[in-house]
Amino acid sequence: MSTAAFRVAILAFDDVEALDLAGPYEVFTTAARMHARQQPGTPPLFDVRCVARPATGEAVVRARAGLRIVPDGDFNDTAPADVLIVPGGVVDGAMRCPDTLAWIARAASAARVTASVCTGAFLLAASGVVRDGAVTTHWEDVDDLRTQFPQLDVRTDVRWVQHGGAGRLFTSAGISAGIDLSLHLVERLAGRALAERTARQMDTPWHPEPQERPNT
Amino acid sequence: MSTAAFRVAILAFDDVEALDLAGPYEVFTTAARMHARQQPGTPPLFDVRCVARPATGEAVVRARAGLRIVPDGDFNDTAPADVLIVPGGVVDGAMRCPDTLAWIARAASAARVTASVCTGAFLLAASGVVRDGAVTTHWEDVDDLRTQFPQLDVRTDVRWVQHGGAGRLFTSAGISAGIDLSLHLVERLAGRALAERTARQMDTPWHPEPQERPNT
Repeated sequence: MSTAAFRVAILAFDDVEALDLAGPYEVFTTAARMHARQQPGTPPLFDVRCVARPATGEAVVRARAGLRIVPDGDFNDTAPADVLIVPGGVVDGAMRCPDTLAWIARAASAARVTASVCTGAFLLAASGVVRDGAVTTHWEDVDDLRTQFPQLDVRTDVRWVQHGGAGRLFTSAGISAGIDLSLHLVERLAGRALAERTARQMDTPWHPEPQERPNT
Repeated sequence: MSTAAFRVAILAFDDVEALDLAGPYEVFTTAARMHARQQPGTPPLFDVRCVARPATGEAVVRARAGLRIVPDGDFNDTAPADVLIVPGGVVDGAMRCPDTLAWIARAASAARVTASVCTGAFLLAASGVVRDGAVTTHWEDVDDLRTQFPQLDVRTDVRWVQHGGAGRLFTSAGISAGIDLSLHLVERLAGRALAERTARQMDTPWHPEPQERPNT
């Protein structure tokens, strides 16, 4: 069992967008490294794992553009996470997989915070984790999300959005927006100073406010 | 043999920084996808592969924070690349590996463009690919790069820098700066419009000029 303060599980699936997964992975692991450097001897802050459905063949996930990732665990052998990250990509296969949707629903109900990146919002909606209220997704998929889940209030003016007021559920815009949202989650869970230190370590231009949308 | 216009090889090694590798991977594969969408039926623009030294055991590269990646090829079975990307991370092991340094030197001499991300600059210097002139690296490693390679002009005021005037060699600042540099390389190889379209698809705030340095 991990002794980390927060267990972070990032869902991995075939056709995941590589950066949807790697961006949050980099943020939480870098935050853990900065925390360990500033407070040596304390328990790790984040224990970050990529989790995939149990392998039926080769235990490798192939991202959308071909990058092959070996998951750290599967739906059966992974302890409940405190932070659940659901990336996007081509989500058609994951949307059709009852085991994946059931795991997302189960993991989200146990997690302190659940967040989607890009088209990961479709998976949160399909698994029943979000049923109504404000969400966002990749700008190209806004109309499709509205059509498939008309009860959602799909926002186009934000980089990421908090769903409801409880601070338990977040969705982000496309691909690299997952980095901004993850930095925001570091801020919420461990404070602004560590989030800023993490952004600086990653040489990332972090804008803590969710309104900035580049290139639009 | 790939029919792509440009073969892109990204070096993968144990303790690579995950985003140093995944950022450029996402940029070039997304650019290829945007190109294919805009010009269907034409040959692929970029063929992107992660290349590692021949496996002595498990054929998996473990990134610095634990992410496990399966390389697409090794030093012996990979055709010369047009674009060589050398990521950083904890480069101590790679710096001590004669096969890795020799491959970098060989691949760079055959490539049209070679670029490092973050502490990948140390690998370009150790392999003799850069011997003097302007380079950059992660802000935390500037002093160390100057000490180890005093003939280099290590710049701290840029997000990435072109080494010499031939447009064949580039180095970038830390981690996420590899995304900016890769977008610049897309612009050089395939034009500004495609680079802008790629940044927009990635929802990335791209600043085409190399001077912007966030968080400093």
